Amino acid sequence: MFDKVCIIGCGLIGSSIARAIRKQHLSAKIVSSNRSDSLNKKVIELKIVDDSSSDTKKMVEGSDLIIIATPLSSYEDVILKIKNSLKNGSILTDVSSVKENIINLIEKNVSKNVSWISSHPIAGTEESGPEAGFSELFENRWCILTPSKKVNDKDIKLLETFWKKIGSKVDIMNAKQHDYILSITSHLPHLVAYNIVNTTLNAQDKKESDIVKFSAGGLRDFTRIAASNPIMWRDIFIQNKKNTSKMIDVFIENLKDLKEAIENEDRNKLEEIFSKTKKIRKEIVKAGQDVGKPDFGRK
Amino acid sequence: MFDKVCIIGCGLIGSSIARAIRKQHLSAKIVSSNRSDSLNKKVIELKIVDDSSSDTKKMVEGSDLIIIATPLSSYEDVILKIKNSLKNGSILTDVSSVKENIINLIEKNVSKNVSWISSHPIAGTEESGPEAGFSELFENRWCILTPSKKVNDKDIKLLETFWKKIGSKVDIMNAKQHDYILSITSHLPHLVAYNIVNTTLNAQDKKESDIVKFSAGGLRDFTRIAASNPIMWRDIFIQNKKNTSKMIDVFIENLKDLKEAIENEDRNKLEEIFSKTKKIRKEIVKAGQDVGKPDFGRK
Repeated sequence: MFDKVCIIGCGLIGSSIARAIRKQHLSAKIVSSNRSDSLNKKVIELKIVDDSSSDTKKMVEGSDLIIIATPLSSYEDVILKIKNSLKNGSILTDVSSVKENIINLIEKNVSKNVSWISSHPIAGTEESGPEAGFSELFENRWCILTPSKKVNDKDIKLLETFWKKIGSKVDIMNAKQHDYILSITSHLPHLVAYNIVNTTLNAQDKKESDIVKFSAGGLRDFTRIAASNPIMWRDIFIQNKKNTSKMIDVFIENLKDLKEAIENEDRNKLEEIFSKTKKIRKEIVKAGQDVGKPDFGRK
Repeated sequence: MFDKVCIIGCGLIGSSIARAIRKQHLSAKIVSSNRSDSLNKKVIELKIVDDSSSDTKKMVEGSDLIIIATPLSSYEDVILKIKNSLKNGSILTDVSSVKENIINLIEKNVSKNVSWISSHPIAGTEESGPEAGFSELFENRWCILTPSKKVNDKDIKLLETFWKKIGSKVDIMNAKQHDYILSITSHLPHLVAYNIVNTTLNAQDKKESDIVKFSAGGLRDFTRIAASNPIMWRDIFIQNKKNTSKMIDVFIENLKDLKEAIENEDRNKLEEIFSKTKKIRKEIVKAGQDVGKPDFGRK
């Protein structure tokens, strides 16, 4: 499919893409670029990529597909570094969770001969780093493409085929729509998980061990999400602060409403809300976006 | 260990206890009582219990151990029904998630010859009903005992041994302490999960299908918890409203604080909070209170 693919930032997502490319034979050569030399050494040793160096320009040269998979706060550095090394006719993509700002940033920095199409694979785990990656990460997950206005349909189709070949289902969305929907299905849930675990740690005037002991009462699910990459999420919230702030406000209003219902012992209202939220779970399982086994099948 | 055990309310928890008793040969006879006749028929057919009837008094008669496993709002009905049928020297327990009110309610209704020791197995899944139960549900989970003041040590020891035999680890706590700690590790997490799924459903002025499609971005974890038994949770929040209300207030204050940090792009503060919350996950996994595999090991 490609002669050379370059992945900038070979962490959980980047290394999973590299592994999937290898497995599906989608590129003759796979290289990566990481700031840390030990990381560059590691991804070569683990045979995730053929070559890797902190010299991003060199790695990018001659690539047909370039994938930025760094935290959002590095994007400006990265694009300024590589803008003059991108091959004519190449496709530039990324894996970012927020689109509006970065689409414009990159659009104004790349030439017309490069097809800039932002990607967002809705996949990941609470782990970080290249050892945590695996080739099946994208299987049956959605990947949203947000193409720059100037991009030709052929390249959009090509990138779409690429994601499908590594297991994703593909949807196309504009940046504004993407950032709004993801603030609901991903950014607010992560922020709430971080906040509940943080609240828990602060509230415990007793021993932290009680939280650990009795976490199976519900809290443990949140600690998984609140164990996600801190830098990546810091950047996501800041980049999508407009939508996130609005969603926080709505969330707080609804929580106050629930609190009032509890204080007034409004049994009908509580039962109605808790029954409604039960329904959506079934649909998510039916759509193959989660496992159907109780407790995620964990033992 | 016992000649007859009676479980009042043979749902997820009740039926799991019955199965575990059977598996570990802890009682010669196991009976249950449910309001619905079809449920009584079902638990006999499924061989979960030896006998079952809506005549709770009859089922309770002659039992050495009586376990109330109904939603909290039924407790008053149940205790008034059975108070005069409890055998001298029997142990009365339950599986409730909130203690303070119900301990007093039952204490004033049972005679001195009955040992009332409240239990709380910190275990469960998002499913309900006797078909959802399984004998391993309590393995490696904590069970908190809250004995009534008048109870003798011998019976506390006996009940402790019972829970240990079905796989639990046992801790003893007073009602006030229990209700506070559980409001942190269980009640607030559930309320927040219900609230985020409810917020999501309301916020989506577009299609509900987008929520389903992109739920793997984080939301799907919350939908599992928000699929828990609505009646049971309605009762828990109302019974523990004092602690829950306070925790909601603290949670909202912290969330506003996070919102401000995001709006001010306070990168250091965000990174610090998100790094702190990562730590507790490791301890929970180390303590055997969750699986260590990424994404709960789900595929």
